[in-house]
Amino acid sequence: MARYKLTVEYDGGPYVGWQHQENGRSVQQALEEAVRAFCGETVRIVTAGRTDAGVHALGQVVHLDLARDWPAETVMHAINQHLKPEPVAVLASVAVSEDFHARFSALARHYRYRIVNRRAPLALEHDRAWRVSRPLDAAAMHAAAQVLIGRHDFTTFRAAQCQAKSPLRTLDRLAVRREGETVLIEASARSFLHNQVRAMAGTLSLVGEGKWSAGRLAEALAACDRAAAGPNAPPHGLYLVAVDYPPES
Amino acid sequence: MARYKLTVEYDGGPYVGWQHQENGRSVQQALEEAVRAFCGETVRIVTAGRTDAGVHALGQVVHLDLARDWPAETVMHAINQHLKPEPVAVLASVAVSEDFHARFSALARHYRYRIVNRRAPLALEHDRAWRVSRPLDAAAMHAAAQVLIGRHDFTTFRAAQCQAKSPLRTLDRLAVRREGETVLIEASARSFLHNQVRAMAGTLSLVGEGKWSAGRLAEALAACDRAAAGPNAPPHGLYLVAVDYPPES
Repeated sequence: MARYKLTVEYDGGPYVGWQHQENGRSVQQALEEAVRAFCGETVRIVTAGRTDAGVHALGQVVHLDLARDWPAETVMHAINQHLKPEPVAVLASVAVSEDFHARFSALARHYRYRIVNRRAPLALEHDRAWRVSRPLDAAAMHAAAQVLIGRHDFTTFRAAQCQAKSPLRTLDRLAVRREGETVLIEASARSFLHNQVRAMAGTLSLVGEGKWSAGRLAEALAACDRAAAGPNAPPHGLYLVAVDYPPES
Repeated sequence: MARYKLTVEYDGGPYVGWQHQENGRSVQQALEEAVRAFCGETVRIVTAGRTDAGVHALGQVVHLDLARDWPAETVMHAINQHLKPEPVAVLASVAVSEDFHARFSALARHYRYRIVNRRAPLALEHDRAWRVSRPLDAAAMHAAAQVLIGRHDFTTFRAAQCQAKSPLRTLDRLAVRREGETVLIEASARSFLHNQVRAMAGTLSLVGEGKWSAGRLAEALAACDRAAAGPNAPPHGLYLVAVDYPPES
């Protein structure tokens, strides 16, 4: 048996999310079918993070086990060949030991949330970013975001259907910056609660519009109450950018 | 009568190009129908540059005349409202004098050609960039590109169906740079021949792959022969970025 670590890019738009669902096609299904078409093996692919419907990935990481020991490059090109025309692509493939686990070995997950801050509709990025019409103060968003850094009970920013045992998470980085009409929110943590990044992005947009102060954001966090947060930002602005692992893997 | 200058963004993918054609929907048609839906007037919209099928615009400029004198902001928002769900958006609207002409008043046109230089297919940008698998030397492309700067007979880089009277053009800027796995080619001139940017980008990719020297590029230019150029780069990597006008307009 050989285990492979794959780095995967996908457009979340056409899928019900990473995970198999009864109501539509998942990214997982697209990849598992491509593996079966390539080598005839029926595999269950394990992911670093189950992205929701519409959420994109620039550097999702998964692992899979194959009975036969293929060169890692062959696995990548063969899966890509059989994925066509799905908007899913394997960017890298590495043979790893059986100790490697895409989910449990991960040291950090990095997400990016993209806002285009303008009144006009998005012709080129309508499913790649969230358009916010009212002017956003990115510096105020960044300053307020720093109250969320560190180890906290993030119940306020957690989806009702979140399956994590504990609402405690350690947020390592939450940075907001403007690049022209784009406002980028970058979030890093060992792991996140379900919908945490979208809930933080949606709430930070209220700070950016001047509706919320940094103090109110701190109060919302302390409330440990989902009703205290702003609305979730929509999924199509969210990107899973990268997942970090120990150097040996 | 009131004349309006509009800045327009569009995804060229679903259209036969800017201009009306018998074989499909054009960007011009989408805009003219939105104007008619907004105010009932049948207008002919004049553009700074007729982009080909598949070519995108971040800052196309057009002008149109309306019998009634609307606030410029109203024109923008009303057209955007009626464009939905077309991937075309008006980014700015200014009332201009009748001296202004989107095509004839233009001082410079700026295009960008986007290459993603990697082996894996493009999941998120498959219709937004040209994927080139073989490694490109962007510095060599930039150095070679400088032989095209200045006033030349660009017959080598001109489409057979080009309607310009003269093949002489003055290329002001042709810069190539790498940003991660992306290679960007930026071209500026008062005007370009039909397919000139795509022909230059396709030929420069041969330099980037090491197949062509800068000397061969100079020879191809001097040959004034379409057969001397490399193949055209595909349309979906090309963006009309901006059009410059005299300050008063």
